[in-house]
Amino acid sequence: MTSYPSILLSKAVDQFASLPGIGRKTALRLVLYLLRQSDKDVEAFTSALTTLKSDVHYCRICHTISDQEICPICQSHSRDKHTLCVVENVQDVMSIENTGQYHGLYHVLGGIISPMDGIGPSDLEIDSLIARIQPEEIREVILALPTTMEGDTTNFYIYRRLISLQMTDNLRISQIARGVAIGNELEYTDEITLGRSIINRVDFKV
Amino acid sequence: MTSYPSILLSKAVDQFASLPGIGRKTALRLVLYLLRQSDKDVEAFTSALTTLKSDVHYCRICHTISDQEICPICQSHSRDKHTLCVVENVQDVMSIENTGQYHGLYHVLGGIISPMDGIGPSDLEIDSLIARIQPEEIREVILALPTTMEGDTTNFYIYRRLISLQMTDNLRISQIARGVAIGNELEYTDEITLGRSIINRVDFKV
Repeated sequence: MTSYPSILLSKAVDQFASLPGIGRKTALRLVLYLLRQSDKDVEAFTSALTTLKSDVHYCRICHTISDQEICPICQSHSRDKHTLCVVENVQDVMSIENTGQYHGLYHVLGGIISPMDGIGPSDLEIDSLIARIQPEEIREVILALPTTMEGDTTNFYIYRRLISLQMTDNLRISQIARGVAIGNELEYTDEITLGRSIINRVDFKV
Repeated sequence: MTSYPSILLSKAVDQFASLPGIGRKTALRLVLYLLRQSDKDVEAFTSALTTLKSDVHYCRICHTISDQEICPICQSHSRDKHTLCVVENVQDVMSIENTGQYHGLYHVLGGIISPMDGIGPSDLEIDSLIARIQPEEIREVILALPTTMEGDTTNFYIYRRLISLQMTDNLRISQIARGVAIGNELEYTDEITLGRSIINRVDFKV
């Protein structure tokens, strides 16, 4: 157990070390770095966090982080209002936006079904998703959840809910393509991905 | 360039990403983690930092971080007051204390001489080190600076200062042992370290 020369230092290190992926050595390095900065810089650091925490909104429609009640994507007139992409979290919205390949709307679940972590459907924005999918208005739901067991479970749960509500008549339900990543050597692709990419092969197009 | 759905989020990410070794992806992950915590937890995080910054002391004698004017090590009656270990920073004091092998005093330089970074002797606590080394009182100075070119330069500078002030008569000046790390295979030790450890071999003792 490391002994800190100062209780104040130790408390600040405790706080940083409580963040995911930050060990005590890194926490100490970060705290000592901040300690060397000016009072103004440290104040800017803490106030950015305090302001975010107190003033942040989650979009009333898609539940992404937003500065307003309704996020710019939901407000936009240039987005395709008939396509809805279901994602786990805010980072995923940002990642998909960065590709520049998607122009529809989003729905952020705020997690995925994970019995091991005690997260069930009622902990997620699934009811609000179902409520959003009005016939005529939404024509396609793209499931863009992680390609893990939990992601698959959540995909299946949403699919079953839509089936049971007889909402799939004029609705396409799709999921993001899975396979060998672009630019990867087959040799370094894991067996499961490679196996599935052969089973799920698609017609070659020029 | 990643576009953030919220300016407040983007500002908080900027602050975390300004910390050393924290990229923008990690910064976003940390900020979103804190955002999921309670108001009380976020307040505890920011106030630990604010309190540390406003209330921290540096020991008047050895310049380590301390809650008091004089740190517990300098105040202690059980430490060997005749031996002074010169280190770069507070982390090094903690690392050496953790070994349990040293019972003397410390002197924290607050950096090392690095012309590339514009750090000269006057930016460091070298004058205060020289002032502390009173004949009769201090019998040994252990140079425990990094085993880099900058560390060596700083070692040499301190040595020359002590020589020029004719302070080395009854003073032992030592430096920490350099060589193959305990438990390491020679095969995986870098060539320079291994070469030096042969040149600087010591008598075998049983």
